[in-house]
Amino acid sequence: MILITNDDGIVAPGIKALVEVASKFGEVLVVAPDSPQSGQGHAITLNQPLKLRKVNLFSGIDAYECSGTPVDCVKLAKNVLLKNKKIDLCLSGINHGANSSINIIYSGTMSAAMEASIEKIDSIGFSLLNYSFDADFEPAKFYIEKIIQSVLANPLKSCKLLNVNIPACSQQEIKGIKVCRQGDGTWVEEFQEGTDPRGEKYYWLTGKFVSYESPEDTENDIWALKNNFISVVPSGHDLTHYTELNNFKYMENL
Amino acid sequence: MILITNDDGIVAPGIKALVEVASKFGEVLVVAPDSPQSGQGHAITLNQPLKLRKVNLFSGIDAYECSGTPVDCVKLAKNVLLKNKKIDLCLSGINHGANSSINIIYSGTMSAAMEASIEKIDSIGFSLLNYSFDADFEPAKFYIEKIIQSVLANPLKSCKLLNVNIPACSQQEIKGIKVCRQGDGTWVEEFQEGTDPRGEKYYWLTGKFVSYESPEDTENDIWALKNNFISVVPSGHDLTHYTELNNFKYMENL
Repeated sequence: MILITNDDGIVAPGIKALVEVASKFGEVLVVAPDSPQSGQGHAITLNQPLKLRKVNLFSGIDAYECSGTPVDCVKLAKNVLLKNKKIDLCLSGINHGANSSINIIYSGTMSAAMEASIEKIDSIGFSLLNYSFDADFEPAKFYIEKIIQSVLANPLKSCKLLNVNIPACSQQEIKGIKVCRQGDGTWVEEFQEGTDPRGEKYYWLTGKFVSYESPEDTENDIWALKNNFISVVPSGHDLTHYTELNNFKYMENL
Repeated sequence: MILITNDDGIVAPGIKALVEVASKFGEVLVVAPDSPQSGQGHAITLNQPLKLRKVNLFSGIDAYECSGTPVDCVKLAKNVLLKNKKIDLCLSGINHGANSSINIIYSGTMSAAMEASIEKIDSIGFSLLNYSFDADFEPAKFYIEKIIQSVLANPLKSCKLLNVNIPACSQQEIKGIKVCRQGDGTWVEEFQEGTDPRGEKYYWLTGKFVSYESPEDTENDIWALKNNFISVVPSGHDLTHYTELNNFKYMENL
């Protein structure tokens, strides 16, 4: 059983492309948000109930739209819809836009995959570096098929989560796959300020991604994508800063 | 300048307790959600504008309620309200309930602190292991004061984020501070199922935390809190699974 979700919503072309590839490998269940959920990170819905509605969007494939976040979709799929069924693989995406570098933290797509990985389910998040709903997913699909096939043949071990980003170029231009670390970068934010119809001031988030990586460092996903490689970052959910951990031991004497 | 936020909302007793302690150390600005935002993780608001409203809740201290998520609060504080001002420290909390172990991933409180740390601001998230709004914050305040004082005197280096959890016991019972790693655990979920007034089925998230740690391992926050220590986990935002990274190099040949 392959579980598929995303954060762009169940009608986004990216999830359709992913379902087309994944359904070659066996039974698929789609549970995805009923509205766009980009930037929802690892949000879960605690203060209100969730709805699941069966939809007929993917020919011959069970699919449900969910009123919650991408992580809610995974929790509902696992605990309600697939209660007694083994999930061999959870796939999230194909996201419309990059989830490389720091974006993994903000991404609903990657957080949904991470949620499955926390439950020890092999999980992959796929993103294409093209925000457009008209993006061409064909070059991405070629590599996604290879990656799914490989993970099904060689199940993941202690690392249960792969963050896969695909450059927005033709199949001929893609140089291959690069396995690397999460690149260091951030968003330099500005807020678009305005006044609403009631005269109240509002702020609307906008920003620009800035890399902190040296262009000579080839072992991170920012470099890989800039150089037309597909980046694969084996990822986890342990946020401990191990290299500095012992430097804080002085706090035990406070 | 000390920036204070939380995820329980600006009227929660926990943030009031934190403001009381922090204001002893200098100028404080409070920017916190106008409604409870527990479990919002690293969600940001992309699809709608945000509002900021000045409130008079903390005597002599500038405070704003924000219509967005905890991470939105930090972004607005840094980029709109404190545009040209150095933020010496960002404090988030005091959270009503634990943010130890895997909870750091779901927590709006910790995500707000993490957002500031991504911006290279020294950041600390504080949580008390008591969900009640009537919780006694006095024992926590005693240690929080020591920790703030220590971080202001010794600014953080490459690790910019501390996850501090405080057991719900009396000051006499607290055994001290334990600097440790994030404990391994998960939530075993069940959904409360019901039917809404329109006859539609709903699902409401509930669950129980389960530790994967051996009781003999004393170097994680689950052990620390169970044994009445305050846990301090130096934390980051690089999710790369370094120990397994090279085992995935075979994917470069797909």
